Amino acid sequence: MSYELYYWPGIQGRGEFIRLALEQAGAEYIDVAREPKHGGMKAMLRLLEDETAVQQPFAPPFLRDGEQVIAQTGAILLYLGSRLGLAPEDETGRLWTHQLELTAIDFLDEIHDTHHPIAGSLYYEDQKPEAAQRAGDFREQRLPKYLDYFEAVLAANPDGDAHLVGATLSYADLTLFQLQAGLRYAFPKAMQRIGADYPLSAALHDRVAKLPRIAAYLASDRRLPFCEDGIFRHYPELDG
Amino acid sequence: MSYELYYWPGIQGRGEFIRLALEQAGAEYIDVAREPKHGGMKAMLRLLEDETAVQQPFAPPFLRDGEQVIAQTGAILLYLGSRLGLAPEDETGRLWTHQLELTAIDFLDEIHDTHHPIAGSLYYEDQKPEAAQRAGDFREQRLPKYLDYFEAVLAANPDGDAHLVGATLSYADLTLFQLQAGLRYAFPKAMQRIGADYPLSAALHDRVAKLPRIAAYLASDRRLPFCEDGIFRHYPELDG
Repeated sequence: MSYELYYWPGIQGRGEFIRLALEQAGAEYIDVAREPKHGGMKAMLRLLEDETAVQQPFAPPFLRDGEQVIAQTGAILLYLGSRLGLAPEDETGRLWTHQLELTAIDFLDEIHDTHHPIAGSLYYEDQKPEAAQRAGDFREQRLPKYLDYFEAVLAANPDGDAHLVGATLSYADLTLFQLQAGLRYAFPKAMQRIGADYPLSAALHDRVAKLPRIAAYLASDRRLPFCEDGIFRHYPELDG
Repeated sequence: MSYELYYWPGIQGRGEFIRLALEQAGAEYIDVAREPKHGGMKAMLRLLEDETAVQQPFAPPFLRDGEQVIAQTGAILLYLGSRLGLAPEDETGRLWTHQLELTAIDFLDEIHDTHHPIAGSLYYEDQKPEAAQRAGDFREQRLPKYLDYFEAVLAANPDGDAHLVGATLSYADLTLFQLQAGLRYAFPKAMQRIGADYPLSAALHDRVAKLPRIAAYLASDRRLPFCEDGIFRHYPELDG
């Protein structure tokens, strides 16, 4: 049976971290909200808004696998990791991969808040001065702090610096690829300025992009483009 | 062997969610950074700043259990849940408890950002107008959205509305207790205004507070008070 992924259509967003794992594993899945013949947005909203449902999700993305519905990007990848062969089998390794994913998601939240520091319910245009302030702090403090961390994790991996965890690809590597790609899109100047400080992360990005299934996915129309409705937004005034 | 908890001394913060689980389980633990004889802050910073360490944490809290070091509040509770008898034993139940915890942590992040919308590296006093804006949106939109969600989860629990998961106490219940307590401290007016809409969550708070081990903990000096250095801060100008 196919996995069913539920996420807002039109943006990569948090759903993209799930898509990359499903694509790399060659798993069958339906991207429900983007496919009207499978119910489209209506099917997603029905699941999202049913307050009487047992194990109701708080927000997309969520995944349906038969009877089970799982929300929260980190929890979905924890669930899929062992099933798709994208995480170690032992508890210590699985937990470490998950911990890295949760840290990456914290990073992602901070990336989002560079253009929405005041409220997700307002437009960027309604919080531009505040966004400029927050983005400045992000570029100077938070961006290098997170990038330093993931670079150090690669360098310290006893199984080699080609992967975050162990000697084979994990969903955490796919996530770091997506973070690198998104940051280069959103903050090209900042990443140009400091990118050379992160050779292991850059090399991982390039290797992931060339994995046959990922390369095919990136070239397909299943891969949505980065855009200014997503999490990674290129606003030149926030870059520098 | 005792668990070792590492977290900033002086505030409840994210460490409190771990402490509540350890206390309720009657587990032996050392709150390392608060106990100079166990190494204090120095011991914490040594683990935090060692970039060559395998499985280095990004930030506190982190937990040491023998050789294993686990960071990220959600991952720590996932690890402890089964060991302390505070989560279901089956995968579906464990994942659902974890998913609720991750949603609670998202809520907590938004609570934090009401007083720090621009940068964690600045003081509240340097971002007061922005905080007032963000807190207004939080009170009107996000606070009821999250509270609605947890109330609905309690109401939909097929094993009864006394717990978020199953028929017994889980760490997610302890987390919802702490969120309720913190919100009443930080936003007394807002919670007074809407608190009656959440009778199940309020009842859970009161029951947890009376659990013998939790009551003893709350009355001890191990329980730090809420304060304006923590995540839940009472700034009257942000309440309403």
